[in-house]
Amino acid sequence: MKSFLCDDFMLDSKTAQILYRETARNMPVIDYHCHINPKDIAEDKKYNNIAEIWLTCGDHYKWRAIRTNGYDEKYVTGNASDYEKFSAWANTLPKCIGNPLYVWAHLELKKYFGYDGNLNAESLDKVWDLCNEKLKSMSARQIMKNSNVKLICTTDDPVDSLEYHKIIKKGNDNNTFDIQVLPAFRPDKGLHIEKPGFKEYINKLSEASGVEITCMNFLFDAYSKRLDYFAAMGCKTADNGFENISFKRETEDIPAGKVLKKALNGQELSQDEIDIYKTELMLFLAEEYNKRNLVMQIHFGVGRNNSDRLFKLHGPDAGADSIGGYNCISKLAKLLNELDKINILPKTVLYSINPADNAALVALIGCFQNNDCNIKPNGAGKLQHGSAWWFNDTNTGMREQLINLANNSLLANFIGMLTDSRSFLSYTRHDYFRRILCDIIGSYAENGEYPGDINYLSKIVADICYNNTNDYFGFGI
Amino acid sequence: MKSFLCDDFMLDSKTAQILYRETARNMPVIDYHCHINPKDIAEDKKYNNIAEIWLTCGDHYKWRAIRTNGYDEKYVTGNASDYEKFSAWANTLPKCIGNPLYVWAHLELKKYFGYDGNLNAESLDKVWDLCNEKLKSMSARQIMKNSNVKLICTTDDPVDSLEYHKIIKKGNDNNTFDIQVLPAFRPDKGLHIEKPGFKEYINKLSEASGVEITCMNFLFDAYSKRLDYFAAMGCKTADNGFENISFKRETEDIPAGKVLKKALNGQELSQDEIDIYKTELMLFLAEEYNKRNLVMQIHFGVGRNNSDRLFKLHGPDAGADSIGGYNCISKLAKLLNELDKINILPKTVLYSINPADNAALVALIGCFQNNDCNIKPNGAGKLQHGSAWWFNDTNTGMREQLINLANNSLLANFIGMLTDSRSFLSYTRHDYFRRILCDIIGSYAENGEYPGDINYLSKIVADICYNNTNDYFGFGI
Amino acid sequence: MKSFLCDDFMLDSKTAQILYRETARNMPVIDYHCHINPKDIAEDKKYNNIAEIWLTCGDHYKWRAIRTNGYDEKYVTGNASDYEKFSAWANTLPKCIGNPLYVWAHLELKKYFGYDGNLNAESLDKVWDLCNEKLKSMSARQIMKNSNVKLICTTDDPVDSLEYHKIIKKGNDNNTFDIQVLPAFRPDKGLHIEKPGFKEYINKLSEASGVEITCMNFLFDAYSKRLDYFAAMGCKTADNGFENISFKRETEDIPAGKVLKKALNGQELSQDEIDIYKTELMLFLAEEYNKRNLVMQIHFGVGRNNSDRLFKLHGPDAGADSIGGYNCISKLAKLLNELDKINILPKTVLYSINPADNAALVALIGCFQNNDCNIKPNGAGKLQHGSAWWFNDTNTGMREQLINLANNSLLANFIGMLTDSRSFLSYTRHDYFRRILCDIIGSYAENGEYPGDINYLSKIVADICYNNTNDYFGFGI
Repeated sequence: MKSFLCDDFMLDSKTAQILYRETARNMPVIDYHCHINPKDIAEDKKYNNIAEIWLTCGDHYKWRAIRTNGYDEKYVTGNASDYEKFSAWANTLPKCIGNPLYVWAHLELKKYFGYDGNLNAESLDKVWDLCNEKLKSMSARQIMKNSNVKLICTTDDPVDSLEYHKIIKKGNDNNTFDIQVLPAFRPDKGLHIEKPGFKEYINKLSEASGVEITCMNFLFDAYSKRLDYFAAMGCKTADNGFENISFKRETEDIPAGKVLKKALNGQELSQDEIDIYKTELMLFLAEEYNKRNLVMQIHFGVGRNNSDRLFKLHGPDAGADSIGGYNCISKLAKLLNELDKINILPKTVLYSINPADNAALVALIGCFQNNDCNIKPNGAGKLQHGSAWWFNDTNTGMREQLINLANNSLLANFIGMLTDSRSFLSYTRHDYFRRILCDIIGSYAENGEYPGDINYLSKIVADICYNNTNDYFGFGI
Repeated sequence: MKSFLCDDFMLDSKTAQILYRETARNMPVIDYHCHINPKDIAEDKKYNNIAEIWLTCGDHYKWRAIRTNGYDEKYVTGNASDYEKFSAWANTLPKCIGNPLYVWAHLELKKYFGYDGNLNAESLDKVWDLCNEKLKSMSARQIMKNSNVKLICTTDDPVDSLEYHKIIKKGNDNNTFDIQVLPAFRPDKGLHIEKPGFKEYINKLSEASGVEITCMNFLFDAYSKRLDYFAAMGCKTADNGFENISFKRETEDIPAGKVLKKALNGQELSQDEIDIYKTELMLFLAEEYNKRNLVMQIHFGVGRNNSDRLFKLHGPDAGADSIGGYNCISKLAKLLNELDKINILPKTVLYSINPADNAALVALIGCFQNNDCNIKPNGAGKLQHGSAWWFNDTNTGMREQLINLANNSLLANFIGMLTDSRSFLSYTRHDYFRRILCDIIGSYAENGEYPGDINYLSKIVADICYNNTNDYFGFGI
Repeated sequence: MKSFLCDDFMLDSKTAQILYRETARNMPVIDYHCHINPKDIAEDKKYNNIAEIWLTCGDHYKWRAIRTNGYDEKYVTGNASDYEKFSAWANTLPKCIGNPLYVWAHLELKKYFGYDGNLNAESLDKVWDLCNEKLKSMSARQIMKNSNVKLICTTDDPVDSLEYHKIIKKGNDNNTFDIQVLPAFRPDKGLHIEKPGFKEYINKLSEASGVEITCMNFLFDAYSKRLDYFAAMGCKTADNGFENISFKRETEDIPAGKVLKKALNGQELSQDEIDIYKTELMLFLAEEYNKRNLVMQIHFGVGRNNSDRLFKLHGPDAGADSIGGYNCISKLAKLLNELDKINILPKTVLYSINPADNAALVALIGCFQNNDCNIKPNGAGKLQHGSAWWFNDTNTGMREQLINLANNSLLANFIGMLTDSRSFLSYTRHDYFRRILCDIIGSYAENGEYPGDINYLSKIVADICYNNTNDYFGFGI
């Protein structure tokens, strides 16, 4: 039996252990999609206690676990004290056997707080005191440095002034802080025309861009201006979230502009109208991404805000999301083809929240790997199946994603892991991923399916951990 | 190589072996969903031969295997002799390599008949004689006692008088039989308004309840009265079966009562009308379950009676069912939300027949784990992903269900296994499940993902095998 | 660690190794579905270089990999030299870790060219020279003989004259060539009434059959005549490809004949009309297959020609296909039932391109295993879940198919592997399959789930590798 979180945990074979120890764990981290608040970096935030950084900052993974363990909402997001919330979590964690939360939490305790034991009902006071003491001398920037992070991409609204990115950039420029923090363009609020608040959002976009948006052309113009601004601020990627993928081209009867006007007038839209608007805007945005050599990321399939009860309490991101997409792959195929056929398909990373889509998604990306837009031979492929995401960010979920990719594409050209996290402590997820990656790569060699040349295997591991990401996005580190 | 069905079979690691030997195999059995006929327990049924208890009692799993092995229907459900049917089965069984039928059948031969060898064409006469001799001194109640069963829930129609449950209860009360046999409420025939025989069924329900059902209110009243009766008889759970999940609220134009009247008048119903009736009745029933603290089980996704040929020969449950559900998860999300938002969602166990739903189902239950309705902290969670079911009741199917649950929920709070069986010999399925459970729990520790504290691991195993079930349903054993 | 492609590679246990060495690898090959061009056998084709047999002959698996590695279309299907294309492939292959292409390519180099090393950028010139030298003394027929092939079924259009099959047959008859090459009937072009070229195709079918097709009866007549011809030429199977399965019976308002006439007149068809035509023709064809005791194979779920760009360059089979089927299983259930209920369901092999269908497909075939049409007890079952196909023809994909089949059907009665390939070098895929098969069969015994009787286990392996196929199709070898 391996001891808990020992050096070789999750690494089954000798080859896997060598790949991890000598290569994977030494590679720096690029976190190309996360939900870190740049303000916290700009201000080098400090935390009062471990509950604040772990629970109250919005970690709905943990919230779901605590609710599932029978605790009242008071102890999750309610008015219980931070200590009481931490206590609920400490009582819940031992139940998380097999859940990545168990490993993540203990890796964080070990790496950032030097705590080697288990967190549970008995140890909770000791851990509470230990962590809170250590937090006095920790800050957001320090945690990032200790995590060997070189660069992260935050997630930002097109209307955002990026003021905190500017502050951080100054620190980069005057050598007081050497981690790059780049904005990522996330235009969801202007895409999802059927959602409440759309009209108000368009007003904000008008204001931010200086273009009064009264028709599609002005909308396009506004987005172009904001994209220019983001690109000037170092943005290398845009992210788009969909519940279901829309694909319906506008017609003479229903041009997208007519739909926009109806929405701005507060009129109800049909599903066809919604799909037309989203399709035309998405095609435009993709072309703009391509012009600027930005990577387009598309996250799809989430069924959001299933519980009206939790939505009333919290709004979105309360831990009431699920897997809800529906027949997305065939529409995605049409969307990609529409761009590809006129040679404006940008580099694209596709993520489905439904693991039942894995095989279809890898089959799909293989159809559009044309080598335009700065793709070099022997580098990361133009279309990527994004790393296992959210509900799939588990030992088995990541294995399935990696093995599916290997089965029908080129694993060696994969751009690897991201945290998608709101927390500064989540860089341990890269460690978790790297162990799984080394275990799989090692198993191909151990099994006689691939030569056991440790140098070449190490190169594959290093590329997936770091080099491919750096090349693909053009970070130029 | 492990020898066939040796003590440690299916248990890969030392930790798994210890967990199974010292804990799992000693835990009693609660079988909270099965199709045992209570009459057979009341009358302490005896069997003339092994074909009767294994084949002719309705085991369509075995029937399908025999047909797949090329035998004429005569040898499956036709007029061949019991010995001939047994012979067909004995010829088929060796082909079942990797099929749980192979392990189950041999575990049953070993445990109940003391036969250690293989059943095949050569040994069939020996096995036939041995089993039939042993059956002379066996009975339904004895088999249950030998299986360490403490309690089972049968599956009963609301119109059932529960007369056999009364007889069994008397035996419990006067200490001549110490296994509880509780009824479970299964209102499917009154829910599936589109099925032939609905009108006749409603007449039976009127009679059983003493309420003449002419409108929704009287239907609700009839179900309430029967629920009261079932609850008084010790019922702790209600089970509902759906091919597809319906969710459509009634409108002013189409109130559910209008649909009911059309059906009672023999008029055709539209799909919308069917969905409205089912939705309103299901919402009512769920509220009633919640009032009485009954656990709501929902089994969905089965495509029933695919073969007209077999349906004509046998009616339902002939072995012609498949996986046929369609986009059920999003409707289920709406159904659960509708109950949750007004705080009447009962404890709920969800089972999909489609293993491709596993991830989505576990993601969904995490959205509604509010701790009302008698859920205590650190006990079994309010919503449960039901144990791998029917076509999934296999080594890989159970692994997938357990690992999915661990990945995104709390495995330690799971309520564990049920047989769903018509046969008294099926308690060996609990043994099969427990081996897989111990193997998985053991692997987390062996792999260094969870501390190897055997006491705590044993507690998790004991809880999933028995304690969580007892607490969750409130059996009070 | 096993050395690369050593004797025991991919064979985890001793039992698996014995099964492979002593049984599986010695069994001859029947390849009952492939896309080999019979002309190449008739003419005993020779190849100028390794690029010709590996790349330019139409292997879109490799094309996709090379594109994914960032090479311009010039090096894939364009006007680069054969050497340049081979160079692009040799640079790409090392990236294929975990992809079956890596193992297949190296097995081919080892078996047919005696090359034991790796193909990569360093070795490409050596491999190029070595293979091209060997190819001088190799030919299509010799490769087949060296592969221990006994029989293959090609894929042929009903209008085909089968002239090359005649030439090959002569060689069989005069003992100059002892491998049978049977035609398989593939009527897709006459089924897919919505596709461009349908009318022209019907003209060809009229010509080939000598029946002027002006209505459904004459269409049926034409197909019957061609089926008679194919059967006389030794055809034992018909293959049908669908993107989505259609099931909609004709009505008085829309008889299939009316749809056919509209199509022949160049009129647009509604989806209902398309479905009706396909359903009625498919039901007719299935009945005709059954009359002639032909095995019906159905491949479904492929989303074809996703890239307009590649379609313009190449037409179909350019490597732009994906997984695109949609709710096929429930329609398939109706199609099978329609045939089964009047006792005309032929022996049937079902293949879905979507691995998420595996469980549902195995559940479905169990509903229709009636033992008519020459099925003997204890032989291969009437309905078969076809071997893992195309995107699933991977280590994990084949495992999933085999284990699913074992879980809910009779693995021992499975008809096993086929290449589905255009290349004469692909018989190594049978070796790849057999290793996986032995590994799984071995694991059941090693794990104590099945007796470790090596003789009986060997019989199961031999049956799946060869005997079941021979019996099931009635090849009579």
